[in-house]
Amino acid sequence: MVSNKRVLYTKIPTGFPVDGEDMKVVDSTIDLEAELPKGNFILKTLEISVDPYMRGRMRDPSIESYAPAFEVNKPMTGDTMSVVVKSNNPDYKVGDLVYGRTGQGIFEEYVQVSAEYAKHAYVVRNDAKENGLPISHYVGVLAMPGMTAYYGLNEIGKPKKGETLYVSAAAGAVGQLVGQFGKAMGLHVVGSAGSDDKVDYIKTIGFDEAFNYKKGDIEENLRKYCPNGIDIYFESVGGKMLDAVLAVANNFARVIACGMISQYNLTKPEPIYNIMNIVSKRIKFDGFIIMDHASHYEEKFLKEVTPLLVSGKVNYKTDIAEGIEKTPEALIKVLRGENFGKQVVHVADL
Amino acid sequence: MVSNKRVLYTKIPTGFPVDGEDMKVVDSTIDLEAELPKGNFILKTLEISVDPYMRGRMRDPSIESYAPAFEVNKPMTGDTMSVVVKSNNPDYKVGDLVYGRTGQGIFEEYVQVSAEYAKHAYVVRNDAKENGLPISHYVGVLAMPGMTAYYGLNEIGKPKKGETLYVSAAAGAVGQLVGQFGKAMGLHVVGSAGSDDKVDYIKTIGFDEAFNYKKGDIEENLRKYCPNGIDIYFESVGGKMLDAVLAVANNFARVIACGMISQYNLTKPEPIYNIMNIVSKRIKFDGFIIMDHASHYEEKFLKEVTPLLVSGKVNYKTDIAEGIEKTPEALIKVLRGENFGKQVVHVADL
Repeated sequence: MVSNKRVLYTKIPTGFPVDGEDMKVVDSTIDLEAELPKGNFILKTLEISVDPYMRGRMRDPSIESYAPAFEVNKPMTGDTMSVVVKSNNPDYKVGDLVYGRTGQGIFEEYVQVSAEYAKHAYVVRNDAKENGLPISHYVGVLAMPGMTAYYGLNEIGKPKKGETLYVSAAAGAVGQLVGQFGKAMGLHVVGSAGSDDKVDYIKTIGFDEAFNYKKGDIEENLRKYCPNGIDIYFESVGGKMLDAVLAVANNFARVIACGMISQYNLTKPEPIYNIMNIVSKRIKFDGFIIMDHASHYEEKFLKEVTPLLVSGKVNYKTDIAEGIEKTPEALIKVLRGENFGKQVVHVADL
Repeated sequence: MVSNKRVLYTKIPTGFPVDGEDMKVVDSTIDLEAELPKGNFILKTLEISVDPYMRGRMRDPSIESYAPAFEVNKPMTGDTMSVVVKSNNPDYKVGDLVYGRTGQGIFEEYVQVSAEYAKHAYVVRNDAKENGLPISHYVGVLAMPGMTAYYGLNEIGKPKKGETLYVSAAAGAVGQLVGQFGKAMGLHVVGSAGSDDKVDYIKTIGFDEAFNYKKGDIEENLRKYCPNGIDIYFESVGGKMLDAVLAVANNFARVIACGMISQYNLTKPEPIYNIMNIVSKRIKFDGFIIMDHASHYEEKFLKEVTPLLVSGKVNYKTDIAEGIEKTPEALIKVLRGENFGKQVVHVADL
């Protein structure tokens, strides 16, 4: 028998979730010698992704939303990268690297998977062995966050050369990519983040301007750093940030909305006042969830973005927590905006 | 010399504009016998349209917006229908009916127009003589409000048969048309209005369900009358109405936003709380102003919609104020939601 720690979801949180109360890492064991039923295989988890949308899954399951509610006392799930260590399934061979899709990769050190569950949840990604990229990239820039950035900016933003793109949470999993993709498209790119270190970082990866949104008035800073207004806003923050952007946005601006992290842990959302600008400025404010588009977009996305990473044209900063027991803490860090770059949990080496 | 009353804009209002303070109808005269400079012609105004967007033009001119600010002590402008009574311009012959475009038709009993001003402001519309429709239709259903309804529902709403369309201000200039166009497209159409009379009226023109938004809780009523949720919301109200719709909207709903009349006379806009639903429900919330699209859309629109009126397939209720001196009062009535149907001012018979 081998030790097999699991990350359980244990309670619906009020406000910010609490490690040890709403989520618990528990000891368990798995018998790696036991015979596997036909179609089954065992994954050893290498990397776990923690992402803001997971807060939305910590809700009363009677409330519908785009991602299913977590089940109490079951392991949490999300993007994972793993290696097959034992198999009775010809499609998943020992040594294969396997990506656990958004919301479906199971947060345990070892995961025994049936053929049926595997079909929609796990996909072999052996190119991860060959191109020299960190395996953690396969739960970040080459997974849900990267696709969110790429799809949103291209398909909703419809950017035109010379326009101003503003990115909030610009040092985060999605924002740092939006800015770099925007620069490659000839946009003037402005970002904000919550610390001076983050502001310095996003300048090094090509943002034209950046500011610390915790210092000074947001709207004033937007007017200062976006002297030509905002044509495209990549929105993942909400609240006061959104209200300020609506005030500063240009006519015909596009708001690409993939999240509103500032609101996830409030019991009542912050009010928005500048909504009328959507009419007077003819703004397109479109929400999207990449899971709706992933199946038909993933191939194109991986083909176009993987070479940009391999060649170093696009950078991706990752914030790594060490050990599966750090998973709850890492998620809370993300919800508090304390991560610096894409937050992952490194569970084991290949 | 002939009497020529003019509707002047006299002051930037605070809150609701006041007749006699912010707008004044003043006496003046015009010499219809005098020789006209080359290219000039004189219009006798028949119908004036008063519309909610005009409140937005009563602002400090240093504030930019989609429609230019009114100039203090100048005549107000908007959609008009007139007849040429004297002309030194071969393109505008005596007896021609002439449409004054949105924001450009001048609110006087008689208007002397130069060729230069006429080029963008006034268009001959002699088909109005032939098809038996009221001339007032040419500043309503066949002008800006009608095009707003038709363009918004088709081009932004992209309706699919069987979907639920909800229309606020449903007995108004735009709403009554949105509902009828929606029914013709096979939608389930629900409307709300501010009096029981209006509710009765919209049912007679084909709305499947209707309610008085002043009675009971808006969100409860929406859940009751839209049991399958809302797929398309035609938004011209804003405020609490919008917040309730965001709560009830289905995944992938479209909010077609052409105005937010409940907010125009407030010194501070009402807060909106349910903005996060734009992300979680993947809502497309698109503002538009028909003036941006009119030039390339008008021909198609008139060709498709005129026959629907002539054949009686589409109804259009008009609320008529008699006499140019009623113009300020009629506009205020519209801003208070007290009009019943498209508000026009009948200035003179043909």
